[in-house]
Amino acid sequence: MTVVVQKFGGTSVGTIERIKAVAKKVIERKEQGNDMVVVLSAMGKTTDELITMAKEISPNPNKRELDMLVATGEQISIALLSIALHEYGYDSISLTGFQAGIKTNGLHTKNQITDIDLKNVKKHLGEGRIVVVAGFQGINEKGDITTLGRGGSDTTAVALAAKLECICEIYTDVEGIYSADPRICPKAKKLDAISYEEMMEMASLGAGVMETRAVELGYKYNIPIYVGMTHGDKKGTMIKEYDETMEGRVITGLTTNDDVLMITVNNVEYKSKNIAVIFDKIAKHSINIDMISQTAPFEGYVNISFTCSTDDSYSVEMAAKELQIDMPEIEVSRESNITKLSVVGIGMMKQFGVAAKVFNIFADNNIEFKQVTTSEISISYTINSSDKQKAVNALAVALDLQVN
Amino acid sequence: MTVVVQKFGGTSVGTIERIKAVAKKVIERKEQGNDMVVVLSAMGKTTDELITMAKEISPNPNKRELDMLVATGEQISIALLSIALHEYGYDSISLTGFQAGIKTNGLHTKNQITDIDLKNVKKHLGEGRIVVVAGFQGINEKGDITTLGRGGSDTTAVALAAKLECICEIYTDVEGIYSADPRICPKAKKLDAISYEEMMEMASLGAGVMETRAVELGYKYNIPIYVGMTHGDKKGTMIKEYDETMEGRVITGLTTNDDVLMITVNNVEYKSKNIAVIFDKIAKHSINIDMISQTAPFEGYVNISFTCSTDDSYSVEMAAKELQIDMPEIEVSRESNITKLSVVGIGMMKQFGVAAKVFNIFADNNIEFKQVTTSEISISYTINSSDKQKAVNALAVALDLQVN
Repeated sequence: MTVVVQKFGGTSVGTIERIKAVAKKVIERKEQGNDMVVVLSAMGKTTDELITMAKEISPNPNKRELDMLVATGEQISIALLSIALHEYGYDSISLTGFQAGIKTNGLHTKNQITDIDLKNVKKHLGEGRIVVVAGFQGINEKGDITTLGRGGSDTTAVALAAKLECICEIYTDVEGIYSADPRICPKAKKLDAISYEEMMEMASLGAGVMETRAVELGYKYNIPIYVGMTHGDKKGTMIKEYDETMEGRVITGLTTNDDVLMITVNNVEYKSKNIAVIFDKIAKHSINIDMISQTAPFEGYVNISFTCSTDDSYSVEMAAKELQIDMPEIEVSRESNITKLSVVGIGMMKQFGVAAKVFNIFADNNIEFKQVTTSEISISYTINSSDKQKAVNALAVALDLQVN
Repeated sequence: MTVVVQKFGGTSVGTIERIKAVAKKVIERKEQGNDMVVVLSAMGKTTDELITMAKEISPNPNKRELDMLVATGEQISIALLSIALHEYGYDSISLTGFQAGIKTNGLHTKNQITDIDLKNVKKHLGEGRIVVVAGFQGINEKGDITTLGRGGSDTTAVALAAKLECICEIYTDVEGIYSADPRICPKAKKLDAISYEEMMEMASLGAGVMETRAVELGYKYNIPIYVGMTHGDKKGTMIKEYDETMEGRVITGLTTNDDVLMITVNNVEYKSKNIAVIFDKIAKHSINIDMISQTAPFEGYVNISFTCSTDDSYSVEMAAKELQIDMPEIEVSRESNITKLSVVGIGMMKQFGVAAKVFNIFADNNIEFKQVTTSEISISYTINSSDKQKAVNALAVALDLQVN
């Protein structure tokens, strides 16, 4: 028997009817002769509703207790799916994170899986049961219930597949991985396959379908991850090792991310100590800087811009206030209508001139960019959000990311 | 430090505002210098809502999975209370049944507590934390999550108090234990104290405030149980050993129970074998018989009546069908508008004539009764439900169960 791990997201189990449909889908795969492990997220908006309740009690709820609270969401969905499987005549057992042996470590609400003790899962598989595991959660060394943070259910699924050395299928409400977000670029191509590296890059740059951590795990253990639609038969995308089928592409995908806050510090006296003071202060406030740019010195002064997540808005304000005490001459301004646009492709490593091509497209379309960064397989630009649609359209055509 | 176990029911934690109020009540008791263990039920109608979801998937949901599902209700309420306690500046930790060491045995949805491993609870109490425990749930030897059945949170609280050798306070939406159900007898007396034996008898006869099992545990380990109202300062009822303060009373309380199905088998040939056949068949269908009456033989035939819970309605029908195959001459009829009315009091053991007094009251008020049973400290009658109100009024006056 081959083991298959299937994971279904919150929308896929959002109603009783959908849970029944998922049960039938699992049974279909079981009937093909597979041992089934199913990982579920919480139903629909359950997690958000639970967090809202907690926040009505405390603006900053105790995180250990928040994990205790939120973990009930997956416990509800796994019990209901297992009830449905029994109802259809299949032996099944639901397991919480701790029952499935998922050991974690780290800060509450942001735990990482350290190991999986498969004893219980293997025992039930051996006895012919469909094993339904709560995604997103585990147990730490103290015996506390923990959660894995955003996208945690994908991580649970891939980690189980890695440990069971089997394929992992992620089912969701989109058809697969696209060359660009179809909401912005309706003619974006659905990809049959994408390499782990490209997917990680796209995920970390803002493509919402898969979480970076889960893809990383797949990459590390070389577990093929299929991403497809829960309901319907359309073919999805396989995330796997880079191979010859992907070689024709220079650019695989384009991502945009609007969660960008750009801070500009004007009138900084041009001394290396001053620059260091600024970035020290930012680091002290745990602000995660993404892109940096600096103007050429003019009359002994420079302007520095950098970007971070809008989540860091409050910390930025604090840091700016402190900086202005030490350096009263500087001016700090913030801008939030900024989009980070990135192009990703392993093909870039062999093909030069992608950046130049993009610069030309921007020039032809009067799109001003603020910062540029490059990695081995991606190039990112910050632009005004008002130019986003125009930039995506132009790049999608020029870089062959659209269906004709 | 003294330990106090407080238990709050579903209505008491039914909204965010009420959870905050419970937190303040717990803190008040903590500030009096007590180590606090708090046991909670699920919020309001959560348990019923979860069961409804399960039944939408399966008319007869797998019970192991139903326990998994329903146990989330208490996990939500304990996490929220602990968040509230933290918000008010008190260190607190919520523990699920398994984390609190509550070991159970039995059938899913109807488990019994076999032992409590207090290690975790004592550790957190020792570190000054308010320990918030999920009621109604535990873990069995296989590591499955289990639930204790109706009234299970009371049982959790009393079992914890027994193991910790401390007082147990049960908070609910009524002021305490009454001599009769105030919804039927608005002038019923609130009792300052009641003996374990009387409370067990009243609970098993239908008084809804406390579950028999929980009182039995208190009796077995001699743990005083205080029953009072969550919100407000009115004095409640202490359930404890029978003592001189209770001696003046002949009758302590009166209960009524409408969950009565009366089955009458007419035209039974008067042979002891026949009677045995009837009750054998009933036993085979696992019908729990409560009261039995038989008419005197007339021309070689008798009529037999017995009562059971309306839950057994389907089993009764099956048993009757089978009986009529063996004994085609009998006629079986069923009647459901029957009430069982009971008077309870340890004082009865010393004072004769209570039954006679009740018979006289029934005669004076034209109330017909169908069966009578007596125990050491109670007498029960089945009457037509239409006579219930009249009977309760008359008995409450005659047996001194009302405030003047």
